[in-house]
Amino acid sequence: MNIKNLVKGILVGCSVILISCHQEDAKSDTLTAAANTAMDPLPSWNEGLAKQSIIDFVTKTTKEGSADFVPVVDRIACFDNDGTLWTEMPLPTQLYFVIDRIKTLAPQHPEWKNQQPYKGILEGDLKAAIAGGEKALMELLVTTHAGMTTDEFDKTVKDWVATATHPKTGKHYTEMVYQPMLELLDYLRENGYKTFIVSGGGIDFMRVWAEQVYGVPPYQVVGSSTKVRYDTTGAQPVLIKLAELNFNDDKLGKPVGIHEHIGKRPVFTAGNSDGDYGMLQYTTTGSGPRFGLYIHHTDAVREYAYDRESGLAKLSKGLDDAAKYHWVVADMQKDWKKVYPFDK
Amino acid sequence: MNIKNLVKGILVGCSVILISCHQEDAKSDTLTAAANTAMDPLPSWNEGLAKQSIIDFVTKTTKEGSADFVPVVDRIACFDNDGTLWTEMPLPTQLYFVIDRIKTLAPQHPEWKNQQPYKGILEGDLKAAIAGGEKALMELLVTTHAGMTTDEFDKTVKDWVATATHPKTGKHYTEMVYQPMLELLDYLRENGYKTFIVSGGGIDFMRVWAEQVYGVPPYQVVGSSTKVRYDTTGAQPVLIKLAELNFNDDKLGKPVGIHEHIGKRPVFTAGNSDGDYGMLQYTTTGSGPRFGLYIHHTDAVREYAYDRESGLAKLSKGLDDAAKYHWVVADMQKDWKKVYPFDK
Repeated sequence: MNIKNLVKGILVGCSVILISCHQEDAKSDTLTAAANTAMDPLPSWNEGLAKQSIIDFVTKTTKEGSADFVPVVDRIACFDNDGTLWTEMPLPTQLYFVIDRIKTLAPQHPEWKNQQPYKGILEGDLKAAIAGGEKALMELLVTTHAGMTTDEFDKTVKDWVATATHPKTGKHYTEMVYQPMLELLDYLRENGYKTFIVSGGGIDFMRVWAEQVYGVPPYQVVGSSTKVRYDTTGAQPVLIKLAELNFNDDKLGKPVGIHEHIGKRPVFTAGNSDGDYGMLQYTTTGSGPRFGLYIHHTDAVREYAYDRESGLAKLSKGLDDAAKYHWVVADMQKDWKKVYPFDK
Repeated sequence: MNIKNLVKGILVGCSVILISCHQEDAKSDTLTAAANTAMDPLPSWNEGLAKQSIIDFVTKTTKEGSADFVPVVDRIACFDNDGTLWTEMPLPTQLYFVIDRIKTLAPQHPEWKNQQPYKGILEGDLKAAIAGGEKALMELLVTTHAGMTTDEFDKTVKDWVATATHPKTGKHYTEMVYQPMLELLDYLRENGYKTFIVSGGGIDFMRVWAEQVYGVPPYQVVGSSTKVRYDTTGAQPVLIKLAELNFNDDKLGKPVGIHEHIGKRPVFTAGNSDGDYGMLQYTTTGSGPRFGLYIHHTDAVREYAYDRESGLAKLSKGLDDAAKYHWVVADMQKDWKKVYPFDK
């Protein structure tokens, strides 16, 4: 059990977004999207190689009689979450959840004021908080993610996403999803693809809001997890989240997570960092038509620009090998007409 | 890692069926079923409490405005496999697969003739084969289920189900599925329910044929599993099945497996043994309308009769507590008009 990797997954490499639940807005967005799709399935993508490659691929794999036709049962599409479907900068959203939870719980723990890693979190000194390394990170994780029932955790996440906002934009985290990717999810689903999230982030954290935000139901979310235990000692049987790693869904773990949860090699996969290299490779080395998409963060004005030097979400090996594997690299600055649904 | 439980799950408590793949037959069956459903959604169920309870439940949970209405996103139905969807006697199907694999591989292993547990398998003396206990069972499991790629395993299972037949009926194992349960799966799906298999049997074993036989895609199959490793050393990256338990999806593991794979408490669950007690309990102790169904094997003529004294699939605690949890116990002899699709 390498808890270090889970902690890393959550505190460094993960990426998860939170729910704002403006259902009315969502509905009108959907209607607009549907109307647009009739004309252009990807209206927020600029014309170019990335957009055309996607449309060509979906067209040829769904056209009966095409040499590249893929039966509906095999139309599996996987998406990383942090940095692929929503913003993961300046810190992954799930880390903000950890920080806010510590602050919320602090009044019940006066001793935290003088005790790391809590002291650092409470004083806004993240560096001091994580100076204790793996042990400190593990303590934060356990305090915020374990020792409660799954229902209690769900409610905590739900309440948090309804109120928490991004430090730069002031928007709810679930509003900071990429409009071009929402269109891509819709476009694939309209063409018989099943869309899955395959993220290093926490599976229980994502499942709370993924259906409403992305249209991806809980059973199509793959992520990192701690073990749970079925407990029948109380009045009602519950599942309790334990402080023990169950699965680390990152890097070479992603193809494994895909196999465990989906049981089929995907046809289409999108990611944005070297943590997604394994699943893009697993996808596109299968026989028949396959599509690998990298989202390249090139837009420091509308979002964030980072790749080879990023400590949080490095994209280096993926760029080096994109041509070799025929992966399409979407340039956010050039390929995306808008980034967020709220952009004009 | 309790490999003993996995082995038990596979060699004792599991239940999985194999594919015959008569696609033409399946198609005409489906058409007939669809025609029947228009009049009676469960034509192979006799009128009675079990049938009426199911229909009442589906009706009230899908009627807009009903106090018991369940939104489509929450309509999760889970089914055990062995003994619930197909026959698990005289031995669980997956055990026949193990036996046949050993026989197939034997010519490459002349030493097996004098070496247990192989000797016993080859001579038809199962008792001698498993006299070595856990170690012997583990060896059989490893030899037949690990040390190969997932693609190789899939092909092996696929080839086997296409040819293997049940010792009593001579039918393909995938023909020995319960017609009333196929109708129930269809009926639930037609009413917006997502149907999942939650079995102690091997997840990779079931996924090969579950879609064709039950209409349940691989990502809606939950089962026991060994670990897999993503391997990039060869020309094409592959997933290799390892001789190490990953998850034992039986008894108290079933609610855990449901949480890991589905992420929601089911609304409807069907099982047939005490191995399913936990998931029925987890299901029916949730708030709002819930349904727990036990299939009681009472028909020694058309199938097999077993319950409290069964070593393979004991149903005792489930019968004791059925009334307490308001579980419906379907009596195969009385409640089922026919057992198999091929019955007249």
